[in-house]
Amino acid sequence: MAPNADNLTAVLYKVNDLRLENRPIPEPKDDEVLLKMGSVGICGSDVHYLVHGRISDFVVKEPMIMGHEAAGTVAKVGKNVKNLKVGDRVAIEPGVPCRICDFCKEGKYNLCLEMVFCATPPVHGNLSRYYVHAADFCFKLPPHVSLEEGALLEPLSVGVHACRRAGVGLGSNVLVLGAGPIGLVTILTAKAMGASKVLAIDLLDDRLALAKNCGADLTLKISRDDSPANVAKKVEEVMGAKPDKTMDCTGFSNTINIGLESTKSGGCFVLVGMGASEVKIPLVSYAIREIDIRGVFRYCNDYPLALDMVASGKVNVKQLITHRFELEETVKAFDTAKTGAGNPVKIMIRCNKD
Amino acid sequence: MAPNADNLTAVLYKVNDLRLENRPIPEPKDDEVLLKMGSVGICGSDVHYLVHGRISDFVVKEPMIMGHEAAGTVAKVGKNVKNLKVGDRVAIEPGVPCRICDFCKEGKYNLCLEMVFCATPPVHGNLSRYYVHAADFCFKLPPHVSLEEGALLEPLSVGVHACRRAGVGLGSNVLVLGAGPIGLVTILTAKAMGASKVLAIDLLDDRLALAKNCGADLTLKISRDDSPANVAKKVEEVMGAKPDKTMDCTGFSNTINIGLESTKSGGCFVLVGMGASEVKIPLVSYAIREIDIRGVFRYCNDYPLALDMVASGKVNVKQLITHRFELEETVKAFDTAKTGAGNPVKIMIRCNKD
Amino acid sequence: MAPNADNLTAVLYKVNDLRLENRPIPEPKDDEVLLKMGSVGICGSDVHYLVHGRISDFVVKEPMIMGHEAAGTVAKVGKNVKNLKVGDRVAIEPGVPCRICDFCKEGKYNLCLEMVFCATPPVHGNLSRYYVHAADFCFKLPPHVSLEEGALLEPLSVGVHACRRAGVGLGSNVLVLGAGPIGLVTILTAKAMGASKVLAIDLLDDRLALAKNCGADLTLKISRDDSPANVAKKVEEVMGAKPDKTMDCTGFSNTINIGLESTKSGGCFVLVGMGASEVKIPLVSYAIREIDIRGVFRYCNDYPLALDMVASGKVNVKQLITHRFELEETVKAFDTAKTGAGNPVKIMIRCNKD
Amino acid sequence: MAPNADNLTAVLYKVNDLRLENRPIPEPKDDEVLLKMGSVGICGSDVHYLVHGRISDFVVKEPMIMGHEAAGTVAKVGKNVKNLKVGDRVAIEPGVPCRICDFCKEGKYNLCLEMVFCATPPVHGNLSRYYVHAADFCFKLPPHVSLEEGALLEPLSVGVHACRRAGVGLGSNVLVLGAGPIGLVTILTAKAMGASKVLAIDLLDDRLALAKNCGADLTLKISRDDSPANVAKKVEEVMGAKPDKTMDCTGFSNTINIGLESTKSGGCFVLVGMGASEVKIPLVSYAIREIDIRGVFRYCNDYPLALDMVASGKVNVKQLITHRFELEETVKAFDTAKTGAGNPVKIMIRCNKD
Repeated sequence: MAPNADNLTAVLYKVNDLRLENRPIPEPKDDEVLLKMGSVGICGSDVHYLVHGRISDFVVKEPMIMGHEAAGTVAKVGKNVKNLKVGDRVAIEPGVPCRICDFCKEGKYNLCLEMVFCATPPVHGNLSRYYVHAADFCFKLPPHVSLEEGALLEPLSVGVHACRRAGVGLGSNVLVLGAGPIGLVTILTAKAMGASKVLAIDLLDDRLALAKNCGADLTLKISRDDSPANVAKKVEEVMGAKPDKTMDCTGFSNTINIGLESTKSGGCFVLVGMGASEVKIPLVSYAIREIDIRGVFRYCNDYPLALDMVASGKVNVKQLITHRFELEETVKAFDTAKTGAGNPVKIMIRCNKD
Repeated sequence: MAPNADNLTAVLYKVNDLRLENRPIPEPKDDEVLLKMGSVGICGSDVHYLVHGRISDFVVKEPMIMGHEAAGTVAKVGKNVKNLKVGDRVAIEPGVPCRICDFCKEGKYNLCLEMVFCATPPVHGNLSRYYVHAADFCFKLPPHVSLEEGALLEPLSVGVHACRRAGVGLGSNVLVLGAGPIGLVTILTAKAMGASKVLAIDLLDDRLALAKNCGADLTLKISRDDSPANVAKKVEEVMGAKPDKTMDCTGFSNTINIGLESTKSGGCFVLVGMGASEVKIPLVSYAIREIDIRGVFRYCNDYPLALDMVASGKVNVKQLITHRFELEETVKAFDTAKTGAGNPVKIMIRCNKD
Repeated sequence: MAPNADNLTAVLYKVNDLRLENRPIPEPKDDEVLLKMGSVGICGSDVHYLVHGRISDFVVKEPMIMGHEAAGTVAKVGKNVKNLKVGDRVAIEPGVPCRICDFCKEGKYNLCLEMVFCATPPVHGNLSRYYVHAADFCFKLPPHVSLEEGALLEPLSVGVHACRRAGVGLGSNVLVLGAGPIGLVTILTAKAMGASKVLAIDLLDDRLALAKNCGADLTLKISRDDSPANVAKKVEEVMGAKPDKTMDCTGFSNTINIGLESTKSGGCFVLVGMGASEVKIPLVSYAIREIDIRGVFRYCNDYPLALDMVASGKVNVKQLITHRFELEETVKAFDTAKTGAGNPVKIMIRCNKD
Repeated sequence: MAPNADNLTAVLYKVNDLRLENRPIPEPKDDEVLLKMGSVGICGSDVHYLVHGRISDFVVKEPMIMGHEAAGTVAKVGKNVKNLKVGDRVAIEPGVPCRICDFCKEGKYNLCLEMVFCATPPVHGNLSRYYVHAADFCFKLPPHVSLEEGALLEPLSVGVHACRRAGVGLGSNVLVLGAGPIGLVTILTAKAMGASKVLAIDLLDDRLALAKNCGADLTLKISRDDSPANVAKKVEEVMGAKPDKTMDCTGFSNTINIGLESTKSGGCFVLVGMGASEVKIPLVSYAIREIDIRGVFRYCNDYPLALDMVASGKVNVKQLITHRFELEETVKAFDTAKTGAGNPVKIMIRCNKD
């Protein structure tokens, strides 16, 4: 760590009040590491906090440091840390669970009620020069994987978790609704898992082109008012069969109905996207076709798989990056995310210049 | 088979036009058996066809023989039949699948699109003196299991299928919504599978008393307008924890919301009941708690388990029978089912007097 | 905690050198509790350490406190402990994992390589007046469950883990080889999980009588030199079908062959017992019948289920206790276990007189 | 079908007595199709019958037509056949189960005791000009998939079934023991399923080179007398971790021990190869590491996946073919297989010249 290093930090004070300020460099506890931050991506939830000051019950009441899609370099290690040493470059899994509840013991730590998760109020994030984190939630990157790619393991892990929950595997026919960042990582993952055909649906040609680049075998452009029955029919025509796995990455009520209607009997519909507070669905008609509806919450034991996909070259995650900013330009970066100027997919912020 | 035996048969001609008439005794094919019918129970779907002439896309266009909860005695065997002989008493699994589609080959024959299912138009049922059926969908009853119990394996198999889909097992905390016949067989099964606590919810004291008799550890009476949030709170208080398995046996929109709201994160909500054509639910809020929503359609490889439960004395299924009629009284039996006079739970019709 | 309380402790110095001595009462750390010990059972592994000074790579090099089947009363709580308070009576799950490795995060903490497990060298056990343990591995007993029953949750959890690994459930036909303590808890659990038929095999009538008491539906006495083929034939005759779940609780080579030979194609054979260092088996002939062979190591998330079984009255675990001793009589208790005088099944030691 | 078409057929009369003779062209039943045979591969089991006249309990007592790795063109369809029409090119899944037993109904038809399987005595195979088969066990090939590739779906399906039984998926570290035809299809499949690293072990450099071509990331050459402990150590070094999935494609006792010793705790060892009638293994030491040992028997619902892998270009299965013969040269083809002259991997026989 450089002597006299600053710790410039992006702090959300309240709605639309995001400030950069210098904060003390924290000290790692026995099981923690201090990280010199590399890259941090901007996520839809970050923008949501910026604009609305809350997501559901999570309310920004005190100034909160932003950022949770991140990677960095180990600058200092706590005395019990065995898996890392100074200089290691790592991807940061941003949530640290309690480790003692039933969820944690049963391997579902993402459901832990005591989870401490970066940039989810009142927990601070890591959009700063320096940051401390539990060492076992830092994943060492091999030399050929960049810190930007490391940061992108966060959204990619969402795709991995969603596809695992869906049971995507060799021969799966996968329908992906919505080709935003989450849709794209879902497509990348589904193909890496051996899916037979992936059909991406979106409203926009641009996004469908991205879906193609990420490995979608087929694309279908729909309009906002297409009926579930009509789209389901087209899906079956285009794919040659009903999909057995459907991944909704939009959260819209109509899209959810399209997805359920399209899915093969005995198949699985996974709700990856957040969104509509209430949906109207003919639930019984899907139930009697034994379509499972599964939700996903973040990820759980998925970082190692996401890292493996990137490190082995199975997926190219860098193509998601459309914009890059320095930490000093954070407010501008968030403006870009907020306004959508320049059609951003993934915006990355660099936290240190070396 | 008695010489000159008649084959009195209950035929639904059209809405509210149910007639008894003599039909020829059918001849079993090579893989079939002729059955002298014993007991046939009346199911909600039978009544629905009687009153409405249809269930969803299944419409009674031609006169249809009623009945699908049935047991009988083998009167004649086809030449390829090896598992049965004349005189064997059997429970009849009423649906025979195509055996060649992917669903059949993958062990999900209940989803077979070519399924031939008793008393689902245009397929005839077995409420008659004599009936032929695929031998391998007839399950031999041990001497101490009655034909009435054999007939009750049908609804019991629904409970078995639902509890297996939910993954009920040792230590499960199970919430059962609705204590009608399907709710009751679900309770019986959940306890036989080692569930820790079963809480039954209903609007009526009578039904909750039946639930207790079927093994529910706890009961909760609610009103039609109780809010999901309030009931969920009470459920947690009464059970000491949120249920990890919730079985909706009502199909009502409000009840479905109650069930989802009550379920533990990472748990499973199974929709057993038919009903509401459309429900309004905050799907995303359950999705982010990773609650799986699963439907059930009839049963699949569940008859042997249902038979084992009855034969071993694990469950007393006879207690569900509240009314008994002779085949000649079929119209009266259906009137009772239709009007609910005398609070029927399960009504049985005897098809032969010996 | 009584002023001037002693902490009489049973310490194994070396082979056949077990001593009682007073040790300081330990202080609980922030996440720990101090327990006034209630009952501690003697396990086969304790006797093995006493007689051989080692089990495989675990060697008693330094004096080691014995005991790991235990329950006690909370005497003091660390400052972070929320789930317990002074006076709570608890069963003690004797192994505490590292909480940070992949096994721990994936819900398989029993495989954790850093596991700290009572009375497994060099870790001390809890056969003493006072003992400290991680609070989250202490399970509060309801008032009607005794400390002796609490201690018996340890072997019972082995049965639970084994039956879960086997996938025992409603309708399973279970073969249990060996009716010693582990065989008996396996029988208790299999029946609680809804197994259809449980057949217990042993060399001794006494043990088969115990198996019957624990719920075995059928028993079969065999001789040491019965061939696998012959026994498998008898098993099928007695059960009316090949078992789909076979639990070996002996570890003998011949018994393992009997079990594999008996198991139904597509079924599961679980190795619960330790024993033979090498077995000779025609592995391919079982492989082509797709019989899964699964091992079990201790337990993992099984204590809550074991407690539920006991608390709900599903199983009577007290019947396993044949002998009781006071802590002061520890050497005598171990002599009884070592010699088998009086045919002990489970020997319990009481650690405090109130 | 050509008028006056012959039906030249390869018939095994007894050990080392394989003859070509003309047989009547069979007539398809209602659910069958007549196939003009395209390509048939030679499998190790064919050679075994030729040389030994039996495999385990299957004994060639009557002259038996050889061949079961096959594809052909539909020449005639039975009256109930809906999935195929004359001219369709199909891969033939060579076993047709009874469709009525529990195994068939539960989706494990490969375990059906009444299975009728090509070239397994006393059932005839399809190494002939014409052959009839159940239509639903014929899988239509898309135009760009050749009949040779169609025939190769048979061994490929073994690899698919093995990898599914093992649970290979994204991120798996897979050890494949033996790089013969079955080892190679296992490697192809494991990579298509998203395995992270596949390490192939063999005695021969040639075979390891083939393994590399099929996608093995790593190879390790061992000697016949290398100890399990030593090889396991090397495996861990080479892979950077113990494999979580180990596939034995040899059936040798020492190799099985190497595989088990190498496997990660909680992992899975699958026995794909046939071979050693008896193995000596320290079973308990693997059991307490909770390594599952699973066998595989042929395949079950795997043909569609194998076809998808080939049709999508995920795997190149043609590279396995080293030798080609005409039907008239069948004896020479089998000689090549028997002697191993020219290091054959997969030998294909063409059954019709157009």
